[in-house]
Amino acid sequence: MGNKNMEIIINPSRSLWTGIVKRPVQDVTGLYKNVQDVLFEIKQNGREALKKYTLQFDGIYMENFEVTEEEFTKAKKQTNPDLKKAINKAAKNIEKFHSAQKTEYNKIETSHGITCWQKAVPIEKVGLYIPGGTAPLFSTVLMLAIPANVAGCRDIVLCTPPDKNGEIHPAILYASMVANVKKIFKIGGIQAIGAMAFGTNPVQKVNKIFGPGNRYVTAAKQLVSMNDVAIDMPAGPSEVMVVADNTAKTEFIAADLLSQAEHGIDSQVILITDSKDIAKKVIKEINIQIENIPRKKIAEESLKSSMIIVMKDIKETRALINEYAPEHLILSTANYHKLADKVINAGSVFLGNYTPESAGDYASGTNHTLPTNGWAKSYSGVNLDSFMKKITFQEISEKGLESIGPTIEIMAEAENLASHKNAVSIRLKDLKANKRRT
Amino acid sequence: MGNKNMEIIINPSRSLWTGIVKRPVQDVTGLYKNVQDVLFEIKQNGREALKKYTLQFDGIYMENFEVTEEEFTKAKKQTNPDLKKAINKAAKNIEKFHSAQKTEYNKIETSHGITCWQKAVPIEKVGLYIPGGTAPLFSTVLMLAIPANVAGCRDIVLCTPPDKNGEIHPAILYASMVANVKKIFKIGGIQAIGAMAFGTNPVQKVNKIFGPGNRYVTAAKQLVSMNDVAIDMPAGPSEVMVVADNTAKTEFIAADLLSQAEHGIDSQVILITDSKDIAKKVIKEINIQIENIPRKKIAEESLKSSMIIVMKDIKETRALINEYAPEHLILSTANYHKLADKVINAGSVFLGNYTPESAGDYASGTNHTLPTNGWAKSYSGVNLDSFMKKITFQEISEKGLESIGPTIEIMAEAENLASHKNAVSIRLKDLKANKRRT
Repeated sequence: MGNKNMEIIINPSRSLWTGIVKRPVQDVTGLYKNVQDVLFEIKQNGREALKKYTLQFDGIYMENFEVTEEEFTKAKKQTNPDLKKAINKAAKNIEKFHSAQKTEYNKIETSHGITCWQKAVPIEKVGLYIPGGTAPLFSTVLMLAIPANVAGCRDIVLCTPPDKNGEIHPAILYASMVANVKKIFKIGGIQAIGAMAFGTNPVQKVNKIFGPGNRYVTAAKQLVSMNDVAIDMPAGPSEVMVVADNTAKTEFIAADLLSQAEHGIDSQVILITDSKDIAKKVIKEINIQIENIPRKKIAEESLKSSMIIVMKDIKETRALINEYAPEHLILSTANYHKLADKVINAGSVFLGNYTPESAGDYASGTNHTLPTNGWAKSYSGVNLDSFMKKITFQEISEKGLESIGPTIEIMAEAENLASHKNAVSIRLKDLKANKRRT
Repeated sequence: MGNKNMEIIINPSRSLWTGIVKRPVQDVTGLYKNVQDVLFEIKQNGREALKKYTLQFDGIYMENFEVTEEEFTKAKKQTNPDLKKAINKAAKNIEKFHSAQKTEYNKIETSHGITCWQKAVPIEKVGLYIPGGTAPLFSTVLMLAIPANVAGCRDIVLCTPPDKNGEIHPAILYASMVANVKKIFKIGGIQAIGAMAFGTNPVQKVNKIFGPGNRYVTAAKQLVSMNDVAIDMPAGPSEVMVVADNTAKTEFIAADLLSQAEHGIDSQVILITDSKDIAKKVIKEINIQIENIPRKKIAEESLKSSMIIVMKDIKETRALINEYAPEHLILSTANYHKLADKVINAGSVFLGNYTPESAGDYASGTNHTLPTNGWAKSYSGVNLDSFMKKITFQEISEKGLESIGPTIEIMAEAENLASHKNAVSIRLKDLKANKRRT
């Protein structure tokens, strides 16, 4: 039992933080090269390469990739009514929260006669990737497709790998129906990313690709993002940080840590507490609860690279949270609102004893596609903005140009860009001539 | 004179559009490999590699990279008073427009007892890159540093290459003072990107890198964005699309096209008009104006890959604008507001006869760091959001969890994530037990 216990670190000095905030390192030797080769083949050979790699990686020869009307109908029948209701309820909350993110843009007169404004427009074509594997991630369908629809994206394409029978889990198809996704292709992994990035028959080219995936999918997304298509964010293994004092319940904390640990062997869970006693109790609780979970082996493995940190100083705790920049942050402390105000680097934050991470994973309404591996220092989680972009507009009146014109002329000249200057000068001259004429 | 005339294309059919929207292709053979090698050396050898490559690429041995207080003071004296006034005026407009982009975030009750909200926080550490070369791009200092300060970024670092004397153009330093940038390093190219991405002494590691650059800088930004740091957007050669009818003035159009063409030999300029007569007049005007510009050779070269498209159908014009997704779009037509409403892919749009692109390049208040090469289909130009990220929060009451709990349990179970379910079940059980006790 000893070796599955989480490591306890007491009051680590700042010099140790670099080690603490470092995520378990993945070996990516040769990864990018291999992924690039597959992408190149997709670009070259199109649909034939999609077939080849679907056979190779998913173990099934597919002649037709697109999900048919019949498959949708069948999935609707196959999905358990309680699950349908749950999906519908979660969808409503997700829609409500993302709809509330719409913003008004006002026209601003920056100087007399110079009017500037922003307009947010939906990205026309988006591609959503839903991983296959042991868990049918229909919740991620909701998390990506609902904001895409709220944003008003015109074309939404979804790719997800087929199982050995060439089929997709009915709950994924049902969630797609709820979230109004009509174009679904049974294509997974690097093939899916390549197909959406290049526009490989039968998949149309999209402008931005969203969604989680394994290291191959992530590498493929990064590679196509260099020249072909935008991506949501660099994805990595999931992680949670829990901050708890004596107002927290140790059995809840243990359950939250395990819910993250069961994700995958490379998941990371960290508990920060001000009490060694809590640390010990949580370990005890984990050792009890872990015996009853189906994914015990995975959780045990991921707990090996996880840790409990005992921190006496609340300022140091705040600093460590922000230095670690967790994907998920659970605050189970007496003054959680006060602590939340100081959080500047995190993906999604869960407040109080009755707000488990699972709530945000499925149904509270917030998005669960979040920055991992410290990327919360520079990235937002997926939100309405992720599916839109902003165009700026400016309109300058004749008076406005007369007023700002000389400023532009001086600056353009100082940057040695005479034609930039001339574009203003020629207009100012024209205005002067007009005045003489009138 | 013939071979500098722009090509005129009349009513191109849709099948020709792929060729039209395609930007001049850059040869990047070996580029990424070479850039990666330099980055690797910077990671390995730190400051010594910065010195080595500054000597190699900028032709000067630098012992100290950081700009000193004395250099700032000297630059302030050296900068022409009229230019100072112009920079101050432009800075005010830029600050005004970007300050107006601040947004309020409201708490949303997605279901009874479930409260969710977003908080926008500044990215703590940002790095700004200002290219060297023939033009001292002090305007870009304003465009990047002012929104960074409006956002509230704590640490702003700026890198720009030294000249042969190890100095930086005074206007760049003056603009930095106006925009409140205090940490400036005389480091350029790949070295600068590597230093900011890795945190190479004397430069601190940043969370996001902004700014334009040549193909080496762009490749370096893309490479470090895979594992180390976020970047603003993939940059490319500048471009403008002008749409003009008979209400436009052909000499203004010619001046606007030339102001873009003078940027670099790989700049692209496109004119769409409904009249062959206008096309011919613009060419005539270009041939006159080009004789008087200092950067004639550059403009001539870039005009070779540029074109004039005569389009009779306004619907086709709209479609081609959005398919091309220009960085800059000038609308000089009778109904420019109506046309602007239909623009969904563009970086920045200039409306009417007295709104030249130069206005946005310098002083209207909008940002001039914009998506090129069709990236306007998925990217915004730099704006206040670029310097911030959003964290989501959720707080669920006991009643709220009782209401949403079963939904989460059903979904987690269907995704085979039993511990996700248990994090809710253990809380619901506790609540039930509490009720029995009271």
